[in-house]
This record gives sequence, C-alpha cells and structure tokens, in this order.
Amino acid sequence: MQRRYVIIAPQRTHRPTDFIEPKPETNGEDNPFLPGREEETMPEIYAVRDKDSKANQSGWSLRVIPNKYPVLKVEGNLDREGVGVYDRLNGVGAHELVVESPDPEADLATMPHRQVVEVLKAYRERLLDLVKDRRFRYVLVFRNHGSKAGASMSHPHSQIVALPVTPQLIAMELESAGKYFEDKERCLFCDIMKHELRENRRIITESERFVAFTPYASRSPFEMCILPRTHACDFKTTTFNDLQELAGVLQDVLQRLSIGLEDPPYNLMLHNCPNLSTFEPQPVRWKTIPYDWHWHLEIVPRLGNYAGFELGTGLFINPMAPEQAAEYLRAMRI
Amino acid sequence: MQRRYVIIAPQRTHRPTDFIEPKPETNGEDNPFLPGREEETMPEIYAVRDKDSKANQSGWSLRVIPNKYPVLKVEGNLDREGVGVYDRLNGVGAHELVVESPDPEADLATMPHRQVVEVLKAYRERLLDLVKDRRFRYVLVFRNHGSKAGASMSHPHSQIVALPVTPQLIAMELESAGKYFEDKERCLFCDIMKHELRENRRIITESERFVAFTPYASRSPFEMCILPRTHACDFKTTTFNDLQELAGVLQDVLQRLSIGLEDPPYNLMLHNCPNLSTFEPQPVRWKTIPYDWHWHLEIVPRLGNYAGFELGTGLFINPMAPEQAAEYLRAMRI
Repeated sequence: MQRRYVIIAPQRTHRPTDFIEPKPETNGEDNPFLPGREEETMPEIYAVRDKDSKANQSGWSLRVIPNKYPVLKVEGNLDREGVGVYDRLNGVGAHELVVESPDPEADLATMPHRQVVEVLKAYRERLLDLVKDRRFRYVLVFRNHGSKAGASMSHPHSQIVALPVTPQLIAMELESAGKYFEDKERCLFCDIMKHELRENRRIITESERFVAFTPYASRSPFEMCILPRTHACDFKTTTFNDLQELAGVLQDVLQRLSIGLEDPPYNLMLHNCPNLSTFEPQPVRWKTIPYDWHWHLEIVPRLGNYAGFELGTGLFINPMAPEQAAEYLRAMRI
Repeated sequence: MQRRYVIIAPQRTHRPTDFIEPKPETNGEDNPFLPGREEETMPEIYAVRDKDSKANQSGWSLRVIPNKYPVLKVEGNLDREGVGVYDRLNGVGAHELVVESPDPEADLATMPHRQVVEVLKAYRERLLDLVKDRRFRYVLVFRNHGSKAGASMSHPHSQIVALPVTPQLIAMELESAGKYFEDKERCLFCDIMKHELRENRRIITESERFVAFTPYASRSPFEMCILPRTHACDFKTTTFNDLQELAGVLQDVLQRLSIGLEDPPYNLMLHNCPNLSTFEPQPVRWKTIPYDWHWHLEIVPRLGNYAGFELGTGLFINPMAPEQAAEYLRAMRI
C-alpha cells in the first residue's frame, strides 16, 4: 500500500501450482554456463576470451549474456499510464548474467585474483554500455551466493539489472545523502568512513584506496561495506588500478566470511549512482549527485530470516553488534 | 546507508559461530507453550481461561506472555543520543507472544471460528493496553506461519512488538495516504477498495463488513489484503461483531491459500495507525491520521526468495499477476 513498485514478471513461471515446491539450486547436467554449451545461452554481450577463440564458442574465461528469463525486457517503450488509483509502466529494462568463470565450482572468494579483476571490469564495462540507453534510470549489479541467498545456479555468476525507475531504497539513500550534503557541504559517506577509521572498532581491513567495515546499523550479522577512500560518485570512473586493489580487498573480506562462518549464503550489491542523463524529466536535486553520492559495495550474509516483523516495518533485527562481528572477522587467518 | 533503523539485539544469541547452523522450527518436548508448562514461560499478561482456573496454570484457551528473548525490552528510557554521524536510542519496547491455542497442531486457518475471534480480540486488548505507554510510537501485530516465514515454533502463535519509533515502511505508507488525502480529501484505502470492487478482477471474497483482495502491486504471488468496508483508522475501535466477521473472512482466505498451495509459509501483518499521543514531539501531519489511515491485514505468502535484487532496490519481483492469483483462490472449494 505504500509507494511501492513491483515487477510483475509472469514470463518467469507458468501455473499457480509451480509455487508449491520451490526449485532447488541446480548445476551439473542442467548447467548451460559450462564451456562447450554456449549455444544453450543467449548470444554473449561481452566476454574475456583467448585470442583465437570466437564469440559464443568455448575459449572464454568470462561471459556476459542476457538472462533467458529476464525480470524486465529490453524491447518496447515505457508507456506510463494511470489505471484507476494505480500507475503502470511497461517492464522495460535489461537483465544480464555475468558468468564469472568457466569452472562451475569456482568461488569469488578464492578464484585467482586476476579473474576477480575481470569480473569487476565486466561490471564497469556493462555499466558504461547500459547508461547509453536513456530509458534506464538505474543499473543494479548484484550477486546471490548460495541457495538461501536466492541463487538458482551454483555456477558462479553475478547479475545486472537496468531499471526504468530509480528504486525506492536507492532513492531514499540519495535523499539522505543529498540532505546531508545540503546541510554540511560534505559527503555523508566520506564522513562515515572517517568516523569509522577514527573510532577503529568496526574496520575489517583496509588498503591504500579502500576501506572495509561492518556498518553501524548492520541489517544482518557480519554485514560488510567496502568504500573507496577517495570521494567517487560513479563506479564507471574506476581505473584498472582501482579494480585490481578492490579485487584484493573484496577477496580478503569474502575469505574471512567464508572461513569464519563456513561459507555462508550472502548477497553482494554494488550501490552506484543513478544514471545522470535519462529521457525522463528528473528532480533538480539529482544534479548534485557527483558531490553527494559515493559508490560502495554492500555484502549482506543471509543468516537470519526475513519474517513478519521485517516485512511489516522495514526495520531489521540484528542479534550481533557490528563491533563484535568486525573483531571476529579481523581475527580470521586468510 | 539509507535512513535505516536496526535493532541490535545481542540478548538473542551468543557466539559468532551460532550463526553457522540456523535453528530449525522446534516443538514437542521443547515446547513451553503447552498446557501444564506455564511455569516455563514468563507470567501471562492476558488470557482466556475457564472460570475456575488460575493465572499461569492450565485451563486456558489463549495466553499472551512476554517473549523470553525479546527484540526490545520494556525497562528504561529512550535515551536518544548522537554517536558521531550516527544516532542511537535505547532498545525500549515490548515483545509479546499470543499463544493462540493449547493445541500445538492447531492452525489459524482451520481452528474453531470462536478461537480465531479470541485471537483477534487479544490483538485489540493488547493494543488498547500498550497504547497507554507513551514511549511507544507504534505497535505491530504479526504472525509467522512455517519455518520459511521465520516461525521458530510451530505451536500457533502471533507476536506483538511495541516500538519507540514509527517504522520506515509504516511512515512511508502514512506519507502516501496523507498526501492523497490532502490532495483529494478522500481516504486512499477507501478509494482502492472501491476501485477493486468496481473492477472485480482481484477480489477473493467479501462479506458485509470486509473485502479481501490480491493487491494491484502484490509483492509476492498470492499476497492478500483484508480491508474493513467502512472507513476505520484504528483496529482498537473494532467491535466484537466486527471481529466475529473478520475471523470468518480471515479463515476463508487462509483456507483457500492452504488448499490451493498445500499450506505454504506466510507472514500476516496488521497495519494499524500509529499511536496518536506519545511523549515525543510529532509532525503536525499526524493529526490527520483518523481521516487518512485505514487499518488492514496483509498476508504475504513466502514463495520466492528475498535476494540481492530486492535487498539492493526495495523493489519486488512477482512472477504471478494478482488477477491470476485471485482467480485461482476464488476457485478453491472451502
């Protein structure tokens, strides 16, 4: 009943009874992400390939492909319309999969560092390409690890969804950061990072360019956040050197999590700025985004359940103080 | 990073490694909700009892008890303070359990109608009592059915949490409804209900006083909403006759859901108005609540997974159109 957008995606299922038994995480014989089975996926959009290999054949180390069962489709116009008290717009968007490795058993935490750099570079390249489509207001990059975190395939992959609206949570984050900047003429995220470094109770690890910590109001035990030290609004502007260092910090914290909690399920989200020039008219406030937004990675382990309390309030209950989580993660030997 | 409240509740767990294996739904020998084991729970706050039975002994058909592992504790003051860039307030609140039946196998969908009336009456009585504590801004009543929906005990029970803040989702719903009322001088929920009745594509069932339908922007397949036909801001003002009829409609829709999808997990939430007179200063807008809020029940089956996309955006993906869900539920023979 609140200001809520829902994507109705009937193309992803068939009959009401399909909901009785949820599908388990699949792999093995049902895995079209394997090398040699390229013809079973949609044609690739981007790939890291051996010099003499051909598109949509083997010889790749990373592939980006459109999702066969997209939550939103690329074709068509937005077609906004009112339906009585409701508003409807066409489900225009893009839904891509980043197959992170040819090895179905590979894990982002432990795969070769070089491969993680390629994954992050693929995020950047796809963001740079998708921003050109002016129907898209926001592009979310995320990763579900483990079936409890929503992964339907265990073959390592990320997802990229381009949306015709700025989603609610991002809009709220923008609003908070925007108000903070208006008030203080400082970036909220820069101030949070400085506070964390000064207090030094929730830091997990840090490098020259990046800081990883457990957020003050962590939604879940062992929630983690990675921020670039230097103010940076847009992930698309990261350099190759940035990505190399980020890959190291990301693997560092994922390994601590994996060792400390025996490879728990988690969701990883890249919180980037919205697309600045879209076809739709936008509030003036967005012009200030380069100053009041700071891209970051959020990693939320799925250790509790999202139940009636959370669904009814939007509040989270976290049974572990982030200081304790950071201390435990710091103590892991990686 | 957004305007987010999190309840840090370390009293609910102990060591970091407790998170490795989540606890399954328990019952049987570990069930302190059974008659004869009253001394294992906290002393009861409210009960429906045989005439000659005594408090905290057997002879009851419904009990309300404080949760032994509360997310918030009743003792203490709010103690709001700033901590660097963050805000902290004490976890003051109440967390109560409504044990809905002495029978551990009973189910709200199929228990005697009279018993469901008592459950709804217990909600009302506890809301009437908790509103007296002026530290509490909002009281949420909810119910987790099935372990996938977050139930840690299968013995049928509801939960009541009194909060020192108006939670985010409720605040957003209030804001939307408030803006609508300001603009049109009509209740948003009344208009939604009239639209639904006129269009007649998402109605599941209706009675003289209540209408049940699948919401236009359903977050999940088979999401259901029950609204009182007559404008009513506050569940605390429901009459016994209202509750009798509501119990019938609630059992009707829960039975359809249970038959149609083989007893799926679900969350039920009572969306009531916030407490109108609390100790804390409040925005003026809230004065209009009696006109721009309309209490309702929300039932969200837990058929999909809440994954990185939802966590990163606050958007929901629903693979089934609500019209199709309503048609399927209407066709169930109950």
